[in-house]
Parts: sequence; structure tokens; C-alpha cells
Amino acid sequence: MNMTQYNSKEEYEEYLKDQAILPAGFRCAATSLSFFPQEKKVNAPMQMNLSLLFSEDEIKSFGAVFTRNTFCGAPVSINKKRLSEPFIHGILINNKISNVCTRSGIHDAEDILSSLGDILHRPSAAFLPASTGIIGWRLPVREIKGSLPGLVQRLPDGNLLDVAKAIMTTDSFPKVRTHQTGDGRITAIAKGAGMIEPNMATMLVFILTDITISRQELRKALRRAAEESFNKISIDSDQSTSDMAVCLSSGKKECESINHFNHALTSVCKYLAEDIVRNGEGTSHVIKVIVSGTNNIHLNAGIGKAIVNSPLVKTAMFGDDPNTGRIVAAIGDYLGNNYITVNTEKMVIRMAGIEIFSNMAFTMNQEKEARLSAYLKECRLDPKIKGYPQHDKTVDIEISFGNKSARTTIIGSDLSYEYVRENADYRS
Amino acid sequence: MNMTQYNSKEEYEEYLKDQAILPAGFRCAATSLSFFPQEKKVNAPMQMNLSLLFSEDEIKSFGAVFTRNTFCGAPVSINKKRLSEPFIHGILINNKISNVCTRSGIHDAEDILSSLGDILHRPSAAFLPASTGIIGWRLPVREIKGSLPGLVQRLPDGNLLDVAKAIMTTDSFPKVRTHQTGDGRITAIAKGAGMIEPNMATMLVFILTDITISRQELRKALRRAAEESFNKISIDSDQSTSDMAVCLSSGKKECESINHFNHALTSVCKYLAEDIVRNGEGTSHVIKVIVSGTNNIHLNAGIGKAIVNSPLVKTAMFGDDPNTGRIVAAIGDYLGNNYITVNTEKMVIRMAGIEIFSNMAFTMNQEKEARLSAYLKECRLDPKIKGYPQHDKTVDIEISFGNKSARTTIIGSDLSYEYVRENADYRS
Repeated sequence: MNMTQYNSKEEYEEYLKDQAILPAGFRCAATSLSFFPQEKKVNAPMQMNLSLLFSEDEIKSFGAVFTRNTFCGAPVSINKKRLSEPFIHGILINNKISNVCTRSGIHDAEDILSSLGDILHRPSAAFLPASTGIIGWRLPVREIKGSLPGLVQRLPDGNLLDVAKAIMTTDSFPKVRTHQTGDGRITAIAKGAGMIEPNMATMLVFILTDITISRQELRKALRRAAEESFNKISIDSDQSTSDMAVCLSSGKKECESINHFNHALTSVCKYLAEDIVRNGEGTSHVIKVIVSGTNNIHLNAGIGKAIVNSPLVKTAMFGDDPNTGRIVAAIGDYLGNNYITVNTEKMVIRMAGIEIFSNMAFTMNQEKEARLSAYLKECRLDPKIKGYPQHDKTVDIEISFGNKSARTTIIGSDLSYEYVRENADYRS
Repeated sequence: MNMTQYNSKEEYEEYLKDQAILPAGFRCAATSLSFFPQEKKVNAPMQMNLSLLFSEDEIKSFGAVFTRNTFCGAPVSINKKRLSEPFIHGILINNKISNVCTRSGIHDAEDILSSLGDILHRPSAAFLPASTGIIGWRLPVREIKGSLPGLVQRLPDGNLLDVAKAIMTTDSFPKVRTHQTGDGRITAIAKGAGMIEPNMATMLVFILTDITISRQELRKALRRAAEESFNKISIDSDQSTSDMAVCLSSGKKECESINHFNHALTSVCKYLAEDIVRNGEGTSHVIKVIVSGTNNIHLNAGIGKAIVNSPLVKTAMFGDDPNTGRIVAAIGDYLGNNYITVNTEKMVIRMAGIEIFSNMAFTMNQEKEARLSAYLKECRLDPKIKGYPQHDKTVDIEISFGNKSARTTIIGSDLSYEYVRENADYRS
């Protein structure tokens, strides 16, 4: 979906600067702090970034979608309640520790926001907390509170690209997307690299708009956009305790058309979702699976996710090996073990447009094998190149069960050494 | 569960020789052949092993359990039908190609078994086919048929350990377990290293017994034993197209007690199942999750599998990192996304007997963190050491939701570089 290619970090940053435009009515800032965790002995202090998205005026139109994880983090629990506040003023975000399942989690977050409210002369309940990082550790409350005055001071000169960088954890590059519609604008930033599964796995998305829209319309638009974007990607099959996508409207610009707004929001979210996968931990191939013909979008999505979540498909892709048998095995595993009957006689599978399976049998030969192998090499990203996405290529796999119209696209990543390396020592 | 430790391949082979005792009434043999695949250009011929388990007399008591994968291989389709044959005489097994989803798959397998029947003067339908390996390629029918006379000639001197070796694909060591009960014996061999999930993923298990048991009783016993063993393990979450566990009784010895038989069969299957996990592709930790207190064994199993299938839990274990947050995230992901309500307030998690979570919060500290880190290092297997299991240690994780009695044990493996390496270039 990205139409551009980047040859260096600098080139990508140039592009990001054009994207990181704050919609009217918003300010932002980022800072960092050092702390020693209580839970683990470390030799050097750890670093945490703190970011603030802020509106001087009351934001009455805001909404959010959250992880479905039962053990959701304190920020998720707090924000679910704050969705019924009459207005908010902003979001405070930290990386490094996700504030999940500690005895004092809710209290810690509220304590911090209370300090922030005092500094900004706004009610504490007018701020939403967001945290990402290690589960089970306490936030360094004292250090965070100590950093708040400095953070607030930076608001006049704050830059959204800095915030997009500050919310990163194992992300390799910042993710910002903007879309102008009429006089108004939607700009969104995202954090998310691992633990990403459809339905909002560890992913933080903050969407700011100046377009006037009612709270109810905004929430409906956000749910729909998230369903078509963030809920259709998967890096690993794990869903985090902390995910959220939050949308704030300052209402500073007129809304020309609710349809245009919906379209713009979905577009921004889809671009960001693909950015997140491309930036997945150790991603060396972005896999795009398009399932059609079942006349059931949930079944389509289930089949697509079964493919992009199969460790054997993922490792084959990593090895530039068009091991088409594993794709069929993953589909059959999903169907058989969920007792789903579809007309498999009509199933046709294509990779890169090349038919590999039809009439219940593979149609591979040496020439197709060689072409697909070359195709996978072309689609390769080097996960060791950090800081920018190298190209926009995807490994396209189409599964069709006939001519019925419903099409569902699922985007996922392969499974590389780099993924294992990053996740084996994430906390060290 | 293995009570022994091995310091070398030779030591393990000594042990295997004591296990690989053919029950009365059976013969076996293994051989190998070379072929060029039609589907892929290769520089050197590929090697395939061919094995035969055979009984001179008619085997009337036999049974099997199969994969639920929708795209099951030709051998699975054929065997499902042959379960209603009045008797069988044996099983022909090949590795390297799984005979799945090719246009001629059924015909190829039947053609080969017809040749075998001619040579052995038995009806072709009295033999069961079993294949494991690459999906989507045709069996080298001509080469296999050409090897059958030599294979049959080896029957008088055949040795079950050779067959256990011949059925291996990426397995690092052969797996044989025996159990004597009264005068009779159950001996079983297994193949299976990757694509292993509860419910019979790529795993071939062949169980021979001389104990007299009716066909109906044998099938009931096999289903129960498989449920408690092979259906409770997971290496990756992929289920293969080809799995089966087949049990044959020659009826040469008296059955002293059907209870003893059931116990012996379950015991053999449990040992083999743990062998399979320990031998998983690139396994560097065997993870044993015991879930109790929900009063629902299916829910217990679902929670256990969610943990051992979580890429983030698996990579943390590989890194000797007691990243306990990921265990809670995996449980919460499973519960929340399946809309399951349990009393999480009562949930207690222990690793190595050490409490890490209770009352909805982590109870970790620096001392526990250090002890668990050392524990994970102790439980480590070196996946580069091939040919024998180094020790029998498991990473024990207990999840309790209260005092209710149902306990379910799920056994899985971690996710290592070695797993990625083996699966990225499996076909080359």
C-alpha cells in the first residue's frame, strides 16, 4: 500500500515530516527519564519515554477501541471508564513498562494523571493513560511525576514525529500517517511491533483530527476503521494486555461529508496497520492473504489468519521457500479442527498470481517453483536494516472458493531468526 | 517422565535396544532408495526410506486415529476405509514425501500396495499406507515398487530400531517405548518433530501388541490413550495432513486384564508423546503446563495450549527469561477472545513451584526472578546436540483456579533459532 520506497533513514524521515502534521487544536511533547526497576536487578538504569498529546480546549468527541485480553492493563481499565467523561484534554503515554497486573497499577496511573492535571490546571479525569512494555512491573511513579513539569514545558514546541518515536518499544521505525479531507485533517501515530494479532494486540494507536464530528459518529467510524485495518493484521498470534486505538476530535474544522471522514479514517488506519506489520519484530516478508468466495467474511478472516499465523508457513516464507504444501495444511487444519465445511473442490490458490492449487491437487512444476522462489527473494526485507521500511512489496497469496463477492484481506509477517532473537531477550 | 539421562548417542541406543522388542507375531524391515522429484529441480538424487511392519497371520484387531485436517493425505483417506477390512497384514511406511494433494495420490498408494500384496501373496487391501514428508509432491512410485522385493527379503532379520530410525524426517533421535504386562507386550515407535499439535499433527505412531484384545476394545483403548497423550502436546500449532496412530494386535498372548492393557497403552503413548516434544525441531526447553481448578478439562486444555503455543512465551523460554507477564497475557488473550469467564481472582500461577501471580497481580521480586532464570538455564537442552535426549527436565508451570479436582497437563516446546533454521530450508 505504501507507494514510496526508501533508501535511507534520512529519506524516510523527510517523508515522515510531511506526514506528522498536528491537526488544529492539538499540542504534543515527548521526554525521557531514567529509573531502576523494583522487580529486576539491573546494572545500569533503564530508560523510559514519556509523551503527551494535549488540547487546550475540551475534547468532547473522543472514542477508543481496546484489547479483549482478560488481563488488560490498568490504562485500559481506566480508559474504559473515562469513555463516559463529558470531555478530555489529552493522553499521557509511556513506553518500557505496560502497567499490567501489579497490585498498585490503577492507583499508580491515577496518581500520575492527578499530578499532570494539577500542572495543567485541568481535572485529572480529563487525561487518558497509555502504557506499553514489560508486563507485571510497576511504573516508576516518582520518576514519571518528576518528569511531568519538563514535559509540559515542551508543549509549545512539541513535534508529533518526536512523539511517534518516543512511543516505540522494539519498533524499528516511527509510524505516522496523515490524510487531508477538505479543510480538515486526520493524523495518526502508532506503536506496535510484536504481540500483534487481529483485534488490537500490543499496539497503541493515537488518532487526532480537527474535523467536527459527534462523539457517537466518531466512535462508530473508529470501530469500523479498526475492524478493517488493525483487526486484519497479525504478526504473532498473541494479543496484548494493553492495546488501544484512541481517536480525538478537536472540532476546529468543518466536516464536509461524514462519508469522506469515514473513508479518510479507514485509509489512515489501513496504512498504519500495514506499516505496523512491515515493522514487525524481525519481519523479512510481509504476507498478504486475500480470501474470497465463501460468502462469509468471518470465515475468510479465519482462513487468512490461519495462514499468516502458521509457524510453518512463516518459516518457509522466511527461507524464500514457496512451500505451498504448508499453506494447504494450514487451511485444512483450520477447517478440520473447527468442523467447518466449505466446498474445497472449488478452492484455487494463487501466489503472485500463479496458480498453485486447484481441483484438490497442487498444480506446481519446476518452472513455477523457480518463479515463486525468485518472487519471494524479491519481496524480502532485511530485518537487520533498522530505521526505515525498505520497500512496499508484499507476498500475495489468494485463496478463492468460488465467485461469491466477499473478499477479506489479512496481512501478516514471516518468522525469522531476528524475531526469535528480539523476543528471547526483550527484557535484558 | 523419562527417568534416565543420556550422555551420548551410544548410551541412548543401548537403552533403545532394550525397548525395541517386537511383540510376538510381527516382523519388520527397512530399506532406502534414491529418486529425483518431478516437482523441483535438484542437483543430486533425494533419499527416501521405506519400512514394513508385517504379520504372517491375519490381524483382525486393529485400529487407528487420524488427523482432523480437511486436506488429509491419500494414506489417511485410504486407511479410514480400510478400518472396515476384515483383517490386515501390515503397514508400509515411507518418509520424505507425504503423498498429500496430488492428482494421483490415492492411485499411487494403491498401486504400490498392490505390488506389495503380490510379493507377499496377500490381498492388497490388507496393507495400510503411511507417508510423511513434503506435501504436494508425488511419490516416486516406480522406485518404491522396485525396492519392495528387497524390503520383503529383509523381513526375517528386521529390527524395530532400524524401522524407528527409517521413519524419521527432521527427528533428531528415534523414539521407541515398550511396556510388558503379564506375558504380553506393547511396543510402539513414533515419528514426529515439527508440525505437532494436539490432535495428531505430523506424527506417525505405530503400536504393536501381542496381547489378545477385541477390535472394539482395542479401538476404544487407543482413542482414550491418544486423547491423554498425543492430543496433549504441541510443538508448533500446526496440524498436519498426514498424522495417524495405528495399533495392531497379533493376539498371540493372553490378556490378563483389560485395565492393565489400557494402562499399559496409555503409559506407552504418554512416554512417546513426551519423547516427541523433547525431540521437537530445535526444542531447547520442554514446557509442561498443568492447569487445574476450572472443573472443565477442555477449558484446562485450552488454557494450557494457549500458553505453550504463544510465540512470545516460547521465545522467552528459549532466552532463559522468566517473562511471566507473557504467560498471563497468553491466558488473558485466550479467555478474552473466546469470551470465557472464569474466576480469575482465584488464579495462582507457579513456575518451578514458585508463586509468581495471585490475587490478580504478580508476586515477583528480584530474588524470584534470579531463581527462575537459573531454573530455566538448568532445564535447557542444546538443540545442536543431535541423536539423543540429553535429560528429562521440564519447565513446570502450574495454573490453578481453585481447588476443583480436574487437572490437565499440556506439554510443549520453546521457539529457538534452530526451529526457524530447520523449517526455513526443510525442502532443500
